[in-house]
Amino acid sequence: MIPPPARIGTLIDEVETPALLIDLDAYERNLDRMAASVAAFPVRLRPHAKTHKCPIIAQHQVARGAVGVCCQTLGEAEAMVLGGVRNILITNQVVSPGKIRRLVALVKQAEVMVCVDDVANVLQLDAAARSIGVRLPVLVEVDIGQHRCGVEPGVPTFELARQVADRPGLRFAGLHAYHGIAQHVYGLSARVELMEHALGALDETVALLLSRGLVCGLVTGGGTGTYPIEAASGVYTEVQPGSYIFMDADYRRVEGAPALFESALFVLTTVLSRTGSRAVCDAGLKASSIDSGLPQVKDRPEIRYVGASDEHGTLEDGSGSVRVGDPLWLIPGHCDPTVNLYDWYVGIRDDRVEALWPISARGANA
Amino acid sequence: MIPPPARIGTLIDEVETPALLIDLDAYERNLDRMAASVAAFPVRLRPHAKTHKCPIIAQHQVARGAVGVCCQTLGEAEAMVLGGVRNILITNQVVSPGKIRRLVALVKQAEVMVCVDDVANVLQLDAAARSIGVRLPVLVEVDIGQHRCGVEPGVPTFELARQVADRPGLRFAGLHAYHGIAQHVYGLSARVELMEHALGALDETVALLLSRGLVCGLVTGGGTGTYPIEAASGVYTEVQPGSYIFMDADYRRVEGAPALFESALFVLTTVLSRTGSRAVCDAGLKASSIDSGLPQVKDRPEIRYVGASDEHGTLEDGSGSVRVGDPLWLIPGHCDPTVNLYDWYVGIRDDRVEALWPISARGANA
Repeated sequence: MIPPPARIGTLIDEVETPALLIDLDAYERNLDRMAASVAAFPVRLRPHAKTHKCPIIAQHQVARGAVGVCCQTLGEAEAMVLGGVRNILITNQVVSPGKIRRLVALVKQAEVMVCVDDVANVLQLDAAARSIGVRLPVLVEVDIGQHRCGVEPGVPTFELARQVADRPGLRFAGLHAYHGIAQHVYGLSARVELMEHALGALDETVALLLSRGLVCGLVTGGGTGTYPIEAASGVYTEVQPGSYIFMDADYRRVEGAPALFESALFVLTTVLSRTGSRAVCDAGLKASSIDSGLPQVKDRPEIRYVGASDEHGTLEDGSGSVRVGDPLWLIPGHCDPTVNLYDWYVGIRDDRVEALWPISARGANA
Repeated sequence: MIPPPARIGTLIDEVETPALLIDLDAYERNLDRMAASVAAFPVRLRPHAKTHKCPIIAQHQVARGAVGVCCQTLGEAEAMVLGGVRNILITNQVVSPGKIRRLVALVKQAEVMVCVDDVANVLQLDAAARSIGVRLPVLVEVDIGQHRCGVEPGVPTFELARQVADRPGLRFAGLHAYHGIAQHVYGLSARVELMEHALGALDETVALLLSRGLVCGLVTGGGTGTYPIEAASGVYTEVQPGSYIFMDADYRRVEGAPALFESALFVLTTVLSRTGSRAVCDAGLKASSIDSGLPQVKDRPEIRYVGASDEHGTLEDGSGSVRVGDPLWLIPGHCDPTVNLYDWYVGIRDDRVEALWPISARGANA
């Protein structure tokens, strides 16, 4: 692990760049706003830790009422358990024999649940759980329109849930139904329409399972773009937003719920070079992920970030105000993969470094 | 740092995914071919370590005749010195006061050179070097068409070189002139044409400096796409290719020199889910950088990687041959930022794990 790019108590000017900053005031307001927002609905909050990969942040979420966290990989879940998080849903399939052994071992240390969408995987999980004498809680992943993992709503979901419920090493814990595409539909009415269709199919599926004797203890899903829709549906028992703590340039474009939250995550960069209206900073695509668009420059509307290479960002500065050595704050295009590039969060308040939090699940993708 | 995803001596089936594999036979052939290729020209090889971020690989390059390595960041240079590399060119500007202190401290441990394109930076570097009694070798970065950092060829380059040569804490070591855009011009004749214009300007600049008493000890640049052009130019004394050791899907599209080299870097992934002709694997954009295009599936032409989300890759498999749990080898779209996502290389030979090399400069972007 790379050493931290700053020391506690120093002024922000002394932070080495590129560095990943959290504006602690904005971050704490985001935590509080989500807690208040979810409290208005009959659901619990289980934020997604794939965004932050940091047990310290997970603990802040739990302290404000979250029931636990979601993880996307087994490695993330292990890092969360090491960091004291007690309740984790892996919103993904775990299929290799080595990982299944790690998964059932983790169930001895914390409440850990996993998703399935394949009957052979159900049998593998059951055998591994029984072999070490644990009972693994399992959710069936339902494809409500994302078309990634998951089984079709209705009878296919019932049939797989029945398989889970019948295995002595497993406990059928409910349904996971996340519509990732809907999160980033910018217009609110188009997003609501997409979710209405998905919710109808899910509602009927929960009723079908109940009519055949299978109770869905949990129905979980939703992200920063849609969570009020799931929360108000009467179908979901939990919502899983992740990006709300930080926000990013892409989520800023999404109407509706995301507007409750502030940009709290920034890449601090330094201008390395300047020629005419062109300047170059030290944050390229190894410092800010460009999969959902280029970063934006905070509080300097005269400067545009126009191109990223591996270690350089190219800026257009019509005003001529930028100088070599100047610091700039960038709003990343996409927070999750940007976080995955760093080992440390540098928490800033009143222009000073107040916190250095290790991103202990960074790279824990296996 | 995340633990390694494998143990030495095990079969490849036991490697946890996603994992970053090196096909050691192909990698060693690439090392040998570049050594032979450069030996045919009157230049030395200084491979770029931004590609691999690994001192063990740098040592393999030096053992085959490389004069040292290039780094793009000070953090990379520090990691290389820690790993025993004795001669490093930082092909970038170092401008913040804290980094300049680290840079001159590093000069006490190894031969470390840096680039400049700004006179104020020259004065800063000089003061820092003198304050601890070292003489820092400095190259002037010349913009030969990349339009990123660098000064214009001709008189502006001479003037900045004069400033460097006049400072008692600095030594004028020559010119750095890299044309990044040219590397990825797919057609050979278009690439040669672009470089001819650049070479003419650089040749005149070297002659101008010489006529005014400044000898360019080093003239360095070139990448995997263009290095034979620089090597044959009579102007350059060193070439800096990096990607040749691994190759990637984008460099496979480039005619000419890159065709000498084999794909040696792969992302090992596991199929998590399958529905109809769609399958989903565990390598998304946190496992394989998509800035230069999606990864390709090795040796399975019936399977196409068609979409990446954070932790998932979506595959189209018209043949229906893919099963949940199957391993696939992906050829990354772009090797450098993909390497920067991992802590370990898993070196494979004859289907066994032969080597685990830490990517010790991963994330060392500051």
